[in-house]
Amino acid sequence: MTHTRMRVVRAGIDTYQQPVVYMHRECEICRSEGFAAMTRVEVQLGQRTLIATLNVVVGDLVTVDEAALSEAAWSALAPQPGELASFRHPEPAASVGALRSKVFGGRLDESQYLALMQDAVASRLSDLELAAFVAASAGERLDQSETTALTRAMLTVGQRLDWGEGLVLDKHCVGGLPGNRTTPIVVAIIAALGYRIPKTSSRAITSPAGTADTMEVLAPVALDLPDMRRVVEREGGCIVWGGNVRLSPADDIVIRIQRPLDFDSDGQLVASVLSKKVAAGSTHVLIDIPVGPTAKVRSDAAGTRLATRLGGTASALGLQLDVYRSDGRQPVGVGIGPALEALDVLKVLRNNADAPADLRERSVALAGALLDMVPGTTPGTGVARANEVLDSGRALAKFLAICEAQGGFREPPHAEFTADVTAGASGRIAAIDNRRLARIAKLAGAPGSPAAGLATAWRIGDVVQRGQPLFTVHAQSRGELAYALEYAATAVPFALEEAA
Amino acid sequence: MTHTRMRVVRAGIDTYQQPVVYMHRECEICRSEGFAAMTRVEVQLGQRTLIATLNVVVGDLVTVDEAALSEAAWSALAPQPGELASFRHPEPAASVGALRSKVFGGRLDESQYLALMQDAVASRLSDLELAAFVAASAGERLDQSETTALTRAMLTVGQRLDWGEGLVLDKHCVGGLPGNRTTPIVVAIIAALGYRIPKTSSRAITSPAGTADTMEVLAPVALDLPDMRRVVEREGGCIVWGGNVRLSPADDIVIRIQRPLDFDSDGQLVASVLSKKVAAGSTHVLIDIPVGPTAKVRSDAAGTRLATRLGGTASALGLQLDVYRSDGRQPVGVGIGPALEALDVLKVLRNNADAPADLRERSVALAGALLDMVPGTTPGTGVARANEVLDSGRALAKFLAICEAQGGFREPPHAEFTADVTAGASGRIAAIDNRRLARIAKLAGAPGSPAAGLATAWRIGDVVQRGQPLFTVHAQSRGELAYALEYAATAVPFALEEAA
Repeated sequence: MTHTRMRVVRAGIDTYQQPVVYMHRECEICRSEGFAAMTRVEVQLGQRTLIATLNVVVGDLVTVDEAALSEAAWSALAPQPGELASFRHPEPAASVGALRSKVFGGRLDESQYLALMQDAVASRLSDLELAAFVAASAGERLDQSETTALTRAMLTVGQRLDWGEGLVLDKHCVGGLPGNRTTPIVVAIIAALGYRIPKTSSRAITSPAGTADTMEVLAPVALDLPDMRRVVEREGGCIVWGGNVRLSPADDIVIRIQRPLDFDSDGQLVASVLSKKVAAGSTHVLIDIPVGPTAKVRSDAAGTRLATRLGGTASALGLQLDVYRSDGRQPVGVGIGPALEALDVLKVLRNNADAPADLRERSVALAGALLDMVPGTTPGTGVARANEVLDSGRALAKFLAICEAQGGFREPPHAEFTADVTAGASGRIAAIDNRRLARIAKLAGAPGSPAAGLATAWRIGDVVQRGQPLFTVHAQSRGELAYALEYAATAVPFALEEAA
Repeated sequence: MTHTRMRVVRAGIDTYQQPVVYMHRECEICRSEGFAAMTRVEVQLGQRTLIATLNVVVGDLVTVDEAALSEAAWSALAPQPGELASFRHPEPAASVGALRSKVFGGRLDESQYLALMQDAVASRLSDLELAAFVAASAGERLDQSETTALTRAMLTVGQRLDWGEGLVLDKHCVGGLPGNRTTPIVVAIIAALGYRIPKTSSRAITSPAGTADTMEVLAPVALDLPDMRRVVEREGGCIVWGGNVRLSPADDIVIRIQRPLDFDSDGQLVASVLSKKVAAGSTHVLIDIPVGPTAKVRSDAAGTRLATRLGGTASALGLQLDVYRSDGRQPVGVGIGPALEALDVLKVLRNNADAPADLRERSVALAGALLDMVPGTTPGTGVARANEVLDSGRALAKFLAICEAQGGFREPPHAEFTADVTAGASGRIAAIDNRRLARIAKLAGAPGSPAAGLATAWRIGDVVQRGQPLFTVHAQSRGELAYALEYAATAVPFALEEAA
């Protein structure tokens, strides 16, 4: 059977990771195939195929003789000049049966999760189907064996780094706590002590800063795999953006759907974290779980469930794993936002007098716990070793060396506009709403404007006086400053109680 | 707080019902608001607001001074020439908590379903969130009280027709059976007997023809509400396309997500059907449930569950409802596809010698059952009354009068290309795959090409000889004919067994 083929052009439209093809309503292919808006279409270009969503052009974006590709489709298919593409109805994805079974409450085996992840990576599952998968996995709907099976499936469809002999350490925070930027400090301490810690981290999607955003203020992070390997072989550690390395492409796809939906799922969280760790070649991993009413994990019971699931899955995969449960009731450090958090990190590494004590303490505790996992070391000595390497300046030297290897260290920028938000009453701080603080920092422009965000040193139990500044908003434009202040006036992040 | 406003233009891109706004990556609003691809954006134009998905333009579809709207967004906002729109981050939808609760297995009350449907209609819920809602309602995850609550919520957010005093009859088929085009015949019989039956019907989404597609071959169906009322007041009945009337806008939105996902949900099916019936002002409704292994309802047990749920919900809403369970093992009539089904309908109404007996019998049975529901009639007399009005030609006359009132009767078109598919072996027909027959008709061009489809008079139990035509494919182009034949060669819809 012959299919009419068409010239492909670049639409110049960014639809994030969703591949879209734009075809004219009157084009021969739309008519003969019965394609309509939102039809799933298989695009074949030479040996490369991709399943995209059709948007039907009724204006002049394309002519009837050409099809336009969104940025994601364009980069996936990488057309040569003048190359012709063919278009057809895709076969139903093989994993649709497995998806259906999960939605209807069934338990899936490893081959079914593998089929799902293969189809996800090949974009054979639509965003609607992926959303249904995320919803069907919400809460504790994946049991231990399913979590392990999903993790293995994510590993199978991605690549895996091999560092040769020896330990590969890592730490990871499940997230949700503003300012909790321990990673650069922990990596510096661990690498300064001669261990290998190839750290990939993420950019913010819903938070005012991801570790990659903060690190990017200090050094380039968009390294590819060969560059990442070079840095780690030279310095023992790195802090790069995982989005460029794409160690677990299936997880990237699930996360793209999961983040806007914001349905917690122990099984998917564990598979996401551990598939990336194993793919990165890690052997010993410490997981930071902050627990607090406005953190991601809201209760001790939820923390325990998650820790158990992490442990069970790591064990099935032959990964050494330990959990560090931390205080998630309030932010860490002073700054919230890429540059402001980077400043806190530098102050700790530089042993500045005004370095935030809670950030240092937490970083040392995490580094210590990770060091204590190393076979042959004396348990309980990790914290002292971490303190020593930090006090001596060796952690700072290692951090600067890593920055140089990644492309060069730079000092963080400062925001052009700042404004204080003052306490409307006097009292003792009874609670801090992490989510509101994060929202204010985002409205001020973080992470898009790296210098934007907010700074506050107040902690639960402190007593403030009416009129004292509670926090300072930092912004790159007057409009963003006003926007953040307007929200802050209605959604106050500090709950005060009468001081005793 | 001031927001920069921008001129809106028409993108000329059809994204079906999903509103999309296209803004340039470098425009001031994207930068100041931190908008990125797939961000949900609230567009305000005068007093009208709409929540749309952002596609970021990196090419020349728009300049940095303008925003383009997809067809759905354009028609929802209807901008005046030169009108400026403002853009902001929408507040989180009020119903997100209810959605979350349902996804995590909770039971929702009427106020929660109302919030969900209000947000769905206002496009405050994203397609991903709607897909999660559909998945969380799959199977029997809505109980009786939730089904009633969802139906009431769908009613509340839509409009409701009032026909004044007297009965309003209706019939509805839950679908899934090719050629089962009883509606025009039933409406003609019921209206000819002097009852009121204002019938709205749907176009095909996944099938080769919906009732609206078939009826459109014979008369205009895209009537608005005042026109529909005029037809019913004059003739007692109508058969119009529900998409133009939009009696249950919330249901239209849920169906848009549900159809491509194809997750059966008793609760959503019942809410969908009954919200439309009550909104249409119906008082007595007969539901046709075809049961068969390749129909929508696959087993007697599933049919009973659905019938019970329909009965319970109708009762809570004060609607008289009866269920007619029919044979769903094989298609009805000869034709599959709009014009071919319309031909069958006309033959039955015209009492032609070659009229398909099964279509006539089924239509009479349904009309009879509906007539038997009328208060004051003698039970069991409906079928005789239906036969009489059909035999006498009064049903035909009424049907033609309805067509004239809707805009004028026309004869169905014939396809330009036809080809027979012959039996590869001799034997008795043991089973017929409705889904494969539907797929062949769709590949031949139905319903986009009204004359396309297939025709077959074979039924289970018939004995065919090798080389005899099993069915005839009808197409409007050689390419579509070839496409359908190619699929038919690999996916034979008739299972033969050795004839006794």
